Amino acid sequence: MKAEIITIGTEITTGSILNTNSKFLSSKLLELGIEVCYHTSVDDSAERIKEAIDISLKRADIIITTGGLGPTYDDLTKEIISEALGLKLIEDEKMLEIIKDKFSKLNRKMPDNNLKLAKKPENSVFLSNKIGTAPGIFLKADNKIIIMLPGPPSEMEEMFNNEVIPLIPQEQFVIKKSINITDIGESQVEMELRDLINSDPEIYIATFAKGNEVEIKLIGKSHDKISLENKLNHYIKIIEEKFNDYIYGYDNIPIEEIVFNILKEKNYKIGFAESCTGGLISSTLCRIPGASNVFDRGIVSYSIKSKIEELGINSSIIEEFGVVSKETAIEMAKGLLKRNDIDIALSITGLAGPDGGTEEKPVGLVYICISNREKIVPIKCNFSGNRKAIQDKAVKKAFFELRKFLINL
Amino acid sequence: MKAEIITIGTEITTGSILNTNSKFLSSKLLELGIEVCYHTSVDDSAERIKEAIDISLKRADIIITTGGLGPTYDDLTKEIISEALGLKLIEDEKMLEIIKDKFSKLNRKMPDNNLKLAKKPENSVFLSNKIGTAPGIFLKADNKIIIMLPGPPSEMEEMFNNEVIPLIPQEQFVIKKSINITDIGESQVEMELRDLINSDPEIYIATFAKGNEVEIKLIGKSHDKISLENKLNHYIKIIEEKFNDYIYGYDNIPIEEIVFNILKEKNYKIGFAESCTGGLISSTLCRIPGASNVFDRGIVSYSIKSKIEELGINSSIIEEFGVVSKETAIEMAKGLLKRNDIDIALSITGLAGPDGGTEEKPVGLVYICISNREKIVPIKCNFSGNRKAIQDKAVKKAFFELRKFLINL
Repeated sequence: MKAEIITIGTEITTGSILNTNSKFLSSKLLELGIEVCYHTSVDDSAERIKEAIDISLKRADIIITTGGLGPTYDDLTKEIISEALGLKLIEDEKMLEIIKDKFSKLNRKMPDNNLKLAKKPENSVFLSNKIGTAPGIFLKADNKIIIMLPGPPSEMEEMFNNEVIPLIPQEQFVIKKSINITDIGESQVEMELRDLINSDPEIYIATFAKGNEVEIKLIGKSHDKISLENKLNHYIKIIEEKFNDYIYGYDNIPIEEIVFNILKEKNYKIGFAESCTGGLISSTLCRIPGASNVFDRGIVSYSIKSKIEELGINSSIIEEFGVVSKETAIEMAKGLLKRNDIDIALSITGLAGPDGGTEEKPVGLVYICISNREKIVPIKCNFSGNRKAIQDKAVKKAFFELRKFLINL
Repeated sequence: MKAEIITIGTEITTGSILNTNSKFLSSKLLELGIEVCYHTSVDDSAERIKEAIDISLKRADIIITTGGLGPTYDDLTKEIISEALGLKLIEDEKMLEIIKDKFSKLNRKMPDNNLKLAKKPENSVFLSNKIGTAPGIFLKADNKIIIMLPGPPSEMEEMFNNEVIPLIPQEQFVIKKSINITDIGESQVEMELRDLINSDPEIYIATFAKGNEVEIKLIGKSHDKISLENKLNHYIKIIEEKFNDYIYGYDNIPIEEIVFNILKEKNYKIGFAESCTGGLISSTLCRIPGASNVFDRGIVSYSIKSKIEELGINSSIIEEFGVVSKETAIEMAKGLLKRNDIDIALSITGLAGPDGGTEEKPVGLVYICISNREKIVPIKCNFSGNRKAIQDKAVKKAFFELRKFLINL
């Protein structure tokens, strides 16, 4: 089954928004074992929407559209699809009630143009919209599946996950697994997996790089569930043996969430003393609901004086070894650890650039130090890329090392 | 002139990466006065690349492709385009030297498959790649402009800005301007601009929302430069009058950069005391190269004890008014301002959720306080959305208020 995703909206073709819908739907369909061969985007022009629909009806088995389902005059998706398939649009009384109800709950009068939201092509079913107003539509016609979804990503994603997936025919069992690794380049990962990647038609293996992380994705498709599970486990074992030291997690759970869970489980409180990352380690952990269970405080000691005043670092250490040094990182962690409420301290100091690098201490040089009352673990790193890339890689690395430190306690 | 963007790569159609190329190229072309009507993405299949090229040759005047220019067997873009247009691929000796040179500079032997990088369709010109290896190609044929660019965004963007733009025919003068506003909803902005939006065929006006910011974009196209400038200034004046209190900047310069520039110009050092944003205000400022010129330190006082220990807040204030209160925010700013190196302190405390809200103090309630040695300005805010949205909006608001505070000094 070949799928095409058609995203409709002038905001896409003018480049005012990123097309996250196509990415979301592609990766979801991949997990369902459906190959997406085409992405098409057109602006809100009736002529070009029609053209895109006509082309896709010739080449795809599953067509998913997003956008153009709203109440205004330039929302034309279902009108054009119905016409292309020779289907009538019929008003659905139940849906009309639902929509009227949504307006009355908001204490707003329903503008008349919303009446058209209750219309759908004959023989199709509505997909309910739990977040917005416009319902989606699921239609089987001419041996094709046509799914019309709203444009706003939050509405679309919720609808796809809860309304569409149960309706998509699963001819085969599909099992997916991701192995998340870091500190190793994608090209090396790919090379080491090369023999594995095309060895089995039932197992799709691919690598995806992001920052200094690599996701190894395995998707198995088969009619025989038991044999598929065995096979997938076999592949996972091989991959785990190859990359043992680099694996930090599974199924794309962010590294900071893994660290958060370990801290919570062990009932540890952590503190951060940051320089080059400017508070990004603290704020990354604080994205997680309930961060206060594990995070006590952070000191962003950006200036030299703040390192001395807030963390009590001896100025002679900085003079002798420099701000970016193992010794300063250790002192930063020690200084923070003096706070009684903290079980673990992580410090970081480095050169995020673009200026300030020397031959001896180039931009990208970063020292991390993790410490509790028994152990002090300093780590030296060299990151490449621009300022943002260096900061982001340093944060990931900090959590990666923190995870190692914690599981060995 | 109608443009189509064809992004080639299995990593796009499988949803492993976001298609940032289409967005980048669309917004650049819009600024050049060229309308993008179609985005197409196909995987690395020769058949589907050919199909996409054939369709685009029928409907677009400018075709820009990204991807498929590398040395491997599935890099087929220029081969397929040459074939579709009946053009021969010719080896270019100069380019061959350049590519060999790139390898020798990296101390690497050039694999033979890289020879094909030096080939281009007859009558086309190479676009040099300053970041990667594969050059781009600019081709005029059959009254169409066909531009082939590499897939990696950094290479593609650099090449487009420096090599492609000078080659694109400018039939009209194009002037663009963005007005950045915040603290007001997009729908209200749109409503107030409705009469303006379609009033002049030479002036394109659109609004783009992101977080709690709205960009009002004006793009003027005309053969008469002077009259266009006058017209655009007239529109800008109208918009400024309508949204005076909400404008924080122009041309999409991030608010933190505006604040950074003011701080630098006035030679002020700032410090942050953060609770609900967990260090995100500090780290946002530290994204900017040279942040150390204006940023001294940040205290992420997440736990109550850390607010008392690090900022010296009287615990009775917290007991009486609560952690999330105007009074605590004021004390946090005051406590931080005691550091001699700081001219301005900004504090923030609030409920990012999802838990912990009450009727009196709901999730989204945030207090900001900005202070120097003369003035104390507390600000109460209510933000909507999930935890991440509340944190992000709070950070933007903090910088927005900081800008107001600074320009009034």
